[in-house]
Amino acid sequence: MAVRAHSGRRPGDSGTREAIATAARRQFAELGYDRTSMRQVALEAGVDPTLVSHFHGSKRQLFLSVIELPFTPADVLPGLLAGDPQDLGTRLARFALGVLESEEGRSRMIGLIRAATSEPEAARVIRELITRELLTPLAEGIGSIDAPYRASLLASQFVGLAIARYVVAVEPLASRDPATVAADIAPTLQRYLTGDLSSWPLP
Amino acid sequence: MAVRAHSGRRPGDSGTREAIATAARRQFAELGYDRTSMRQVALEAGVDPTLVSHFHGSKRQLFLSVIELPFTPADVLPGLLAGDPQDLGTRLARFALGVLESEEGRSRMIGLIRAATSEPEAARVIRELITRELLTPLAEGIGSIDAPYRASLLASQFVGLAIARYVVAVEPLASRDPATVAADIAPTLQRYLTGDLSSWPLP
Repeated sequence: MAVRAHSGRRPGDSGTREAIATAARRQFAELGYDRTSMRQVALEAGVDPTLVSHFHGSKRQLFLSVIELPFTPADVLPGLLAGDPQDLGTRLARFALGVLESEEGRSRMIGLIRAATSEPEAARVIRELITRELLTPLAEGIGSIDAPYRASLLASQFVGLAIARYVVAVEPLASRDPATVAADIAPTLQRYLTGDLSSWPLP
Repeated sequence: MAVRAHSGRRPGDSGTREAIATAARRQFAELGYDRTSMRQVALEAGVDPTLVSHFHGSKRQLFLSVIELPFTPADVLPGLLAGDPQDLGTRLARFALGVLESEEGRSRMIGLIRAATSEPEAARVIRELITRELLTPLAEGIGSIDAPYRASLLASQFVGLAIARYVVAVEPLASRDPATVAADIAPTLQRYLTGDLSSWPLP
């Protein structure tokens, strides 16, 4: 995408920003965080390298602006959190399976995990993202004692399911029907949400 | 490591094999499965490229021979499986935390996860390895109905804990003391091992 030389508001601004984001998304996914460079992103997007930092700041900021959760927590959490708290584990398990059974959801989730395991810096960015957008709102919704810890335990089962069932494809977990898997992990999630944990009540 | 030109039994055979394995281990870990080549492994090991296939077969076989579980299941499982089946979840949870709290165990576990998420071929090799060496013996030890499925559910919580606590370092899970985390995931493991699952008893 060509960019005009004159300054001021340009009709191509949003197109340029989007072309950079598309190139960055592809390179982060295929090359990983470390081997993606601002210069190569600019080259692929067909823009001057200075525009990448103009529009997206640092490489870290660029990464943060192009990674995406497999869903938008603000759209989804209120609906999940409404209703009987004793069924929240079931609702979350069904929702998680629904996300991971869709090709786009699964691909985004695996992309996040791949980025997190490949580079400590990417892991840090992803931690900030999921803590802010997902775990903190979820913990506030749970409202129970030690809710942030409970939300992080829940995240551990969710990410483990994504890897064991969809990435490594461990059998028979990988081929078991989604409704069964959801039903079988739901009590795990429910205990993490509202059950007794070893550290609470305190001795 | 130099290799002598004459044939027959050479004193350097085991040294050569080990030099190749060391180079392969490093390159698989740092470059991933796809970008590791037999030729580059030979170069780093200082041996003729034909010796890599001579000693280790195909690239897939080379990968399989150098990846390592964070522990030796045959050494560990009998001890864990002995004792009260109703406490097996606790024993496995404590063992898992012990492995992941050690630097070498954690590093191997993360290496396996990184390889599995980076290449489908590596994921397949790892799936075969953990199924054969870990999940099948564990399922035989559990002996309950649907034991292979139970073992794979257990693996999902284990791998998720490794990623959430040690790779992404989600808080407060990452900084909670290991004994507390072991106690909090133990009931999850125990239910997967011996508890009711949705699919059993069959309706």
